[in-house]
Amino acid sequence: MAASTTTPPRNSTFPFDLVRPELDRVEAAIREQVRAFDPAIEPYVAYVCNTSGKRIRPALAILVGGATGSVSDDHIKIGVVLELIHMATLVHDDIMDGATTRRMVPTANAKWGNALSVLLGDALFSHALTLATDFGSIDICRKVGRASREVCQGEIIQTQRRFDLSLGKDDYFRIIEMKTGALFAAATALAGLLSGVDAATEERLYGYGMKLGTAYQIYDDCLDLVGSEEVVGKTLRTDLAKGKLTLPILNLLESATEAQRTKLNKRILDQEPLDLPVVVGIAEYEGAIERAVDTALGLLEECRRDVEPLAGSVYADALVQITWFLAGLLDKCRR
Amino acid sequence: MAASTTTPPRNSTFPFDLVRPELDRVEAAIREQVRAFDPAIEPYVAYVCNTSGKRIRPALAILVGGATGSVSDDHIKIGVVLELIHMATLVHDDIMDGATTRRMVPTANAKWGNALSVLLGDALFSHALTLATDFGSIDICRKVGRASREVCQGEIIQTQRRFDLSLGKDDYFRIIEMKTGALFAAATALAGLLSGVDAATEERLYGYGMKLGTAYQIYDDCLDLVGSEEVVGKTLRTDLAKGKLTLPILNLLESATEAQRTKLNKRILDQEPLDLPVVVGIAEYEGAIERAVDTALGLLEECRRDVEPLAGSVYADALVQITWFLAGLLDKCRR
Repeated sequence: MAASTTTPPRNSTFPFDLVRPELDRVEAAIREQVRAFDPAIEPYVAYVCNTSGKRIRPALAILVGGATGSVSDDHIKIGVVLELIHMATLVHDDIMDGATTRRMVPTANAKWGNALSVLLGDALFSHALTLATDFGSIDICRKVGRASREVCQGEIIQTQRRFDLSLGKDDYFRIIEMKTGALFAAATALAGLLSGVDAATEERLYGYGMKLGTAYQIYDDCLDLVGSEEVVGKTLRTDLAKGKLTLPILNLLESATEAQRTKLNKRILDQEPLDLPVVVGIAEYEGAIERAVDTALGLLEECRRDVEPLAGSVYADALVQITWFLAGLLDKCRR
Repeated sequence: MAASTTTPPRNSTFPFDLVRPELDRVEAAIREQVRAFDPAIEPYVAYVCNTSGKRIRPALAILVGGATGSVSDDHIKIGVVLELIHMATLVHDDIMDGATTRRMVPTANAKWGNALSVLLGDALFSHALTLATDFGSIDICRKVGRASREVCQGEIIQTQRRFDLSLGKDDYFRIIEMKTGALFAAATALAGLLSGVDAATEERLYGYGMKLGTAYQIYDDCLDLVGSEEVVGKTLRTDLAKGKLTLPILNLLESATEAQRTKLNKRILDQEPLDLPVVVGIAEYEGAIERAVDTALGLLEECRRDVEPLAGSVYADALVQITWFLAGLLDKCRR
């Protein structure tokens, strides 16, 4: 039965199972890439490859491959390239955050220190961009390079604007489109390009990936405020502590009176022991989290329209299914 | 008068002046590239571009361009690409070393912290690799990507083998060929490729760059032991303190008796207040620094043979002149 584009199905899951054999090939290809590194470095790269990344970007590339013809070696390869870039950013994120564990295992910086981890991320970046040349297409090299640059730039702007209470929603969207949307969009658009789709379809696929990545980031940002650490399995309530102003908080600041805004600013900047839970409580109470969820749901609706013209295969259905899966997660953030 | 390939000329300088107009174009192009970044990031990138790098790699690309035909826009551009990669590695090196100043001004990490500097280096890397796609040649993209990966891998192995007294000379040469030789070799070989030289000439140019970079690194390593901080203008005597075993020290360990080696190992590992100056003193006394200088001079002699077939222009002369300039600097390390 085809996934509906208008009615939410019950209990959607991320369609990893549909593309399990292809994702196994991605894993094998990543392991093969590890061997391209100097033997002295292999163990470090292997550790990072084994412990980070949920392979969402490769899964998207494979699903688009299926939805636009058939899954080819090129779809596997572009998934590997983008996942290596994603892993490089995770290694560097963990350094910046001083994180000691990721997905229950020690981070690279916890195991080997910051110096080696900086270089390890760099080596993964340059390897990914070198691997992208295997397609023999300048267009693809350029688009991969640009996506990689966007991710870094998005993270820089985010870092630079911590605790900056003048951050606008337009700034927020620009940041998350760059840091999360760009690599999702590269996965879906480049997979289409590799299938030989026309420019209009490539653009729609780009839009699907960009909006899906943006909605995913909004979900992640809401989860940081309202999630349960036991369920999510990672440390939460860290964004505000680090001065990251996310959509729910921006919603709250937007709807506040001037007097209220002064109170919020003080709590965000001063961070007395109870300030952050109280700010989250107020955000819930005022419906600011709910409005962020609604924004993300709106983006997911647009995603479904983007891939509507591709309908007619289990892969296209799965692209729709992902949006319902994420919508289900977002709904759980409402309180 | 053509530079002699056998007799050292007096007081050779690095031939920056010969290519001053072209290096000015490199500077202008670097400034133009800064504008390709998001406006929020421009000031950071501009700061790094203004405060780091001596433009040796662009100068090499330009000289090879002149020596193999004429200097074109492409030679300027490959110089810019490689200099951006070099700058990215400097930004990340400063984080790893905890350096607070470079060339008399605060480092990026000193100004804005490690987090932003990690990302800034990443953005420079990905921008350089994106810019490389402008040549429209997969071969060039691949070679730039590989050079970039080599640099990172060389630094990783070096970091990983700090205080490892089993490091062999072959390991040392592999490390410095990767971390310094690869980018020099990319500058000279790719400049030749862009002039349309044949494969044999490209290979000789690659050899010239690789050996020049290696000799330059040996010089830098000797200077760290015997240089004067006032003259050099940077903190010296840091390699051993950080556990970096360089060629003079490896020479010393190699010629030591077992009993002597035990004494050296103890001094290197324990690092009591006087240990490092004493190790340097012994290295001088035993001629270990001298032998490192001789090794570098031998490499420079090979460099001259590599570019001999190109003789016949001021640019080819300048490629020879560089080797004599570096030989002069190395000679001053003898004590």
